[in-house]
Amino acid sequence: MKIGLLGFGVVGRGVYEITCARDDMQVTKVLCLEDISLPDAEAVKDFKEILNDDSIDTVVEAMGGLHPAYEFVRAAIEAGKNVVTSNKALVCTFYDELLPLAQSKGVKFRSTAAVGGGIGWLSELERSRRVQTISQVGGIMNGTCNYILDNMTRMGLNYDDVLKQAQKLGYAEANPSTDVDGIDTWHKVILSSNIAFGVTVDKSTVPVAGIRNIQAQDVENFKAHGLVCKLISTGKRTENGCSVYVQPTLVKEGEPEAAVPMNYNLITFIGDTSERMSFYGQGAGRYPTAYNVVQDLVDVLEGKGFYAPYGEKVAADNSEKLTWYVRGNWQGETAESWGNAVIVKDVSVTDMHAWLKENSEAFVAAIRA
Amino acid sequence: MKIGLLGFGVVGRGVYEITCARDDMQVTKVLCLEDISLPDAEAVKDFKEILNDDSIDTVVEAMGGLHPAYEFVRAAIEAGKNVVTSNKALVCTFYDELLPLAQSKGVKFRSTAAVGGGIGWLSELERSRRVQTISQVGGIMNGTCNYILDNMTRMGLNYDDVLKQAQKLGYAEANPSTDVDGIDTWHKVILSSNIAFGVTVDKSTVPVAGIRNIQAQDVENFKAHGLVCKLISTGKRTENGCSVYVQPTLVKEGEPEAAVPMNYNLITFIGDTSERMSFYGQGAGRYPTAYNVVQDLVDVLEGKGFYAPYGEKVAADNSEKLTWYVRGNWQGETAESWGNAVIVKDVSVTDMHAWLKENSEAFVAAIRA
Repeated sequence: MKIGLLGFGVVGRGVYEITCARDDMQVTKVLCLEDISLPDAEAVKDFKEILNDDSIDTVVEAMGGLHPAYEFVRAAIEAGKNVVTSNKALVCTFYDELLPLAQSKGVKFRSTAAVGGGIGWLSELERSRRVQTISQVGGIMNGTCNYILDNMTRMGLNYDDVLKQAQKLGYAEANPSTDVDGIDTWHKVILSSNIAFGVTVDKSTVPVAGIRNIQAQDVENFKAHGLVCKLISTGKRTENGCSVYVQPTLVKEGEPEAAVPMNYNLITFIGDTSERMSFYGQGAGRYPTAYNVVQDLVDVLEGKGFYAPYGEKVAADNSEKLTWYVRGNWQGETAESWGNAVIVKDVSVTDMHAWLKENSEAFVAAIRA
Repeated sequence: MKIGLLGFGVVGRGVYEITCARDDMQVTKVLCLEDISLPDAEAVKDFKEILNDDSIDTVVEAMGGLHPAYEFVRAAIEAGKNVVTSNKALVCTFYDELLPLAQSKGVKFRSTAAVGGGIGWLSELERSRRVQTISQVGGIMNGTCNYILDNMTRMGLNYDDVLKQAQKLGYAEANPSTDVDGIDTWHKVILSSNIAFGVTVDKSTVPVAGIRNIQAQDVENFKAHGLVCKLISTGKRTENGCSVYVQPTLVKEGEPEAAVPMNYNLITFIGDTSERMSFYGQGAGRYPTAYNVVQDLVDVLEGKGFYAPYGEKVAADNSEKLTWYVRGNWQGETAESWGNAVIVKDVSVTDMHAWLKENSEAFVAAIRA
């Protein structure tokens, strides 16, 4: 296998290093705008040098971002090259375009590192689908949010202080919005739901609430009630389709999610025969992510394409009614007061997220039964 | 695929039910000493009816126990039939016989359900080996022990009372020795080490200590120091081979292992690029176990054999020095007293297990750093 590697940042360099030690694959060209010199590969600055190189059968996209990653991946597939990517935003955003295209062109397309970094999550959904119906996917899918929430919980610190610390340590970006506003998790749960349920979830019907507004006093309220706050994604099969959403969620101390420390992930599926299966590991980082990219390359060598057949577009139905912790200007009925916040019952996911849109300073978390 | 199913107990019936819903495999004969009548399969009482049936290409062994499971599996392999089993004692005990035999006969042999029940553990070790070196395996591999320890910890109950409760609820057998003395975990970590490290660990060099002697006062001592006791298995690559052992282990409250409730398992491997990866799920039960048996059958259909090449026999080197909690007649140096127990430092795994053999009333647990 001759590989054209797009990007030589954290993940790209890891992929290069791991493949260098293998006989069955070789990175022959690396697209990188900076000047680099590699012993075994040619550094190029123009994607066409990879696209038009017929000896390259597989493209690894490790640039991140939507553009020009999308244009490059699309062109590679159209040129009959297999594509492996760790780019969740790309795969999620252009799912209904790239998947059918790869299928029609007969090329392999995989993205295991896009969800859970080094966790064999999408590949296990693929394995699981062979034998059972998956009824639920989700969990803690973002290490930055978990790092922030874990430190706020353990140390009683403020959001801003922990965020600054996380940025200093490299657990959060200078602009943390993609992580703390839940966008990263949103991409991951949509992609996981698409694969687990064999559908294409209409992204506009999947609400997301992040952790930006959480305060130390909220964490104190949770502690007083034996609860721990985590950013949790949910994708569930329902009678007529599926329900998919991302929101801060309060779980009981002693639950497996509550014990997830630092920047770790804990992702779970429930199947009709396997029952609950959870995966705990490094959801990001150079080598864990590169590890799963190389796993995909081995799978491509073994003839494996995407994890599930492309399925029809469905709107998520989030009419499920939950109990909520709400700190903000809530005018409706309340069941209890917890300090300066209230507990609200029997409000649907759709309705609570709609309210949150109008009350952008509020903090809301679902309470898991 | 035509399947001969040996045994129609908890697992066997689950396998039968799941395969009935599939087009690609069919249980055509079931070996069962009781009188049963099945719509789609013939019940037989003599194994020869399966062995001599040339239309049967694959045998699923779901009887448990060593004999006659061993004789039947051996005969099936010799007759050129693929074998899938959930029997950890069988695979572990006869590893150095069945594996080379299956290899020489060119038949597929798999046993994913033997470790972790429904967890895709052995199959993930197989996947992981394609890309990286695995340096460590182990964890909480026995649901009965975890149920007992979890209930003692959460409720402050005595061992005997929790065991009785576990037996009533079906979490422990009438004779609980295989579970509480750590034998089940011992089989599982030896099998996992064999696969992860590509060796055949000499079983006589793997020490095991169980939880039979733990008392409520021990649990109180642990709590006072922020520790939780779990039965944890360890298999590690060392400079010259590997270290493998099973023993009660004290982990810090807040560690992922400490949060594993009820009869759940948490099994972990560490790889040089994936880093730590853990699997949490139902380690037993009809459908989870049957799920992984059927996964193996699908893998056999796809041409997959055993998880790793058969490797040479190695003795475990357990000279690693640990810190221990010891309640019993310890005569050596001590670092601290915890109530009626002592903390002992810098004693090797080998030496502590040797001492424990001479002091069968004592309770010992390693303290994880």
